[in-house]
Amino acid sequence: MTDIEERLARLEQRLTALEDEREISRLIASYGPRVDAGDAEAVAALWESDGVYDVDEWLMTGRDQVERMVRSQGHRNWIETGCAHVVGPPHVTVTGDEAVAVCHSLMVVHQDGQYRVHRATANHWRLRKGPDGWRVTVRTNRVLDGREESPALLGDGVNYTP
Amino acid sequence: MTDIEERLARLEQRLTALEDEREISRLIASYGPRVDAGDAEAVAALWESDGVYDVDEWLMTGRDQVERMVRSQGHRNWIETGCAHVVGPPHVTVTGDEAVAVCHSLMVVHQDGQYRVHRATANHWRLRKGPDGWRVTVRTNRVLDGREESPALLGDGVNYTP
Amino acid sequence: MTDIEERLARLEQRLTALEDEREISRLIASYGPRVDAGDAEAVAALWESDGVYDVDEWLMTGRDQVERMVRSQGHRNWIETGCAHVVGPPHVTVTGDEAVAVCHSLMVVHQDGQYRVHRATANHWRLRKGPDGWRVTVRTNRVLDGREESPALLGDGVNYTP
Repeated sequence: MTDIEERLARLEQRLTALEDEREISRLIASYGPRVDAGDAEAVAALWESDGVYDVDEWLMTGRDQVERMVRSQGHRNWIETGCAHVVGPPHVTVTGDEAVAVCHSLMVVHQDGQYRVHRATANHWRLRKGPDGWRVTVRTNRVLDGREESPALLGDGVNYTP
Repeated sequence: MTDIEERLARLEQRLTALEDEREISRLIASYGPRVDAGDAEAVAALWESDGVYDVDEWLMTGRDQVERMVRSQGHRNWIETGCAHVVGPPHVTVTGDEAVAVCHSLMVVHQDGQYRVHRATANHWRLRKGPDGWRVTVRTNRVLDGREESPALLGDGVNYTP
Repeated sequence: MTDIEERLARLEQRLTALEDEREISRLIASYGPRVDAGDAEAVAALWESDGVYDVDEWLMTGRDQVERMVRSQGHRNWIETGCAHVVGPPHVTVTGDEAVAVCHSLMVVHQDGQYRVHRATANHWRLRKGPDGWRVTVRTNRVLDGREESPALLGDGVNYTP
């Protein structure tokens, strides 16, 4: 009987590990569709209430500031002329109730009847598992334009150990 | 014993949920390689026999019409000059034997020795689980060029509840 | 009791199948961040010690040659002007301790204050599970510029049966 108990407990543990990664990947996969749909509240709800979204020269603290970015005229303009926030498959490292994920994102915009890559960005996500599941605590984005921070962010994220 | 039965049943259920999402994500991940390989029959087989592929001004109904698109001279020309149908990681919502997935896709083409993004598209997939596994019932693609349908499609897909 | 044994064994087997695919997808998701971070040793460690990285006109055999590519002045220049190796979600087929994965990749570069797609590539990965987990045995990349090899590589990878 002990053997069966142990095998059950081990299965439950392995399955939870896959489910955690799946929940995090799914949260990240929802960002692009939500932000391109202009759904400000749903975007903000991906963060913890005091979560941080740190994007080059724009530091947003708390859900209100994330919502404000999505509702901004600048963001509305992108949606109205056509844009795609394409977020690549994340590399996720979970340690207990904390996680780090890293991926690239491309912002592709429509302009004068053509599409162009407006920016390519290194994405570093810190997440925490709380009573409502996984939420972003700090997301740091840096454009890959040669600034040294951006490759460092990718390297740190993928090599993360707690 | 009841406790063990319950834990087994719960594990089986959780595992099936992950397997369903994995099968859907894998089907979607096969579309780009298959369509860029020009494998018309394999592309069409991703749909149910009466499935729909609704692409802006081109509505395909049934596998034959999907096959015909892949075999068309227009599509052959893209392959022969060089093209990549890059389909992003999908956000999948499964409810029983039905599912909705949403993602972006980029069509990148080779032209005059350079690559350019030919279009960026909102993808909304409806799928059904039948005797042969998951198949597409309706895939709706709309280019992200400012038309209002496209952000709406992303928002609807990611917020889907049955 | 036999029934419980069988259900446990079946669960363990199904879970291992998901874990293998997850480990392979995670390895592939680590390539872009590692190569854009210039972490030559970590990139090379994704391959078996005698693994092959076959990139159009550049055939690398063994980890040393992969490391050398990442440390090359050419690669350093890309990092210093800004580049993103965006690797799409892979379609993975595992058969025992061998696997084949296929995906697209985009190399996006920063130049004169703008971003452009430098190349779009068909990626075909062969992997093997050894004492230290999954490693790449042969990765074959061919640009999608109309050469016939590239669509063939995508088709072969996605249709792989051992």
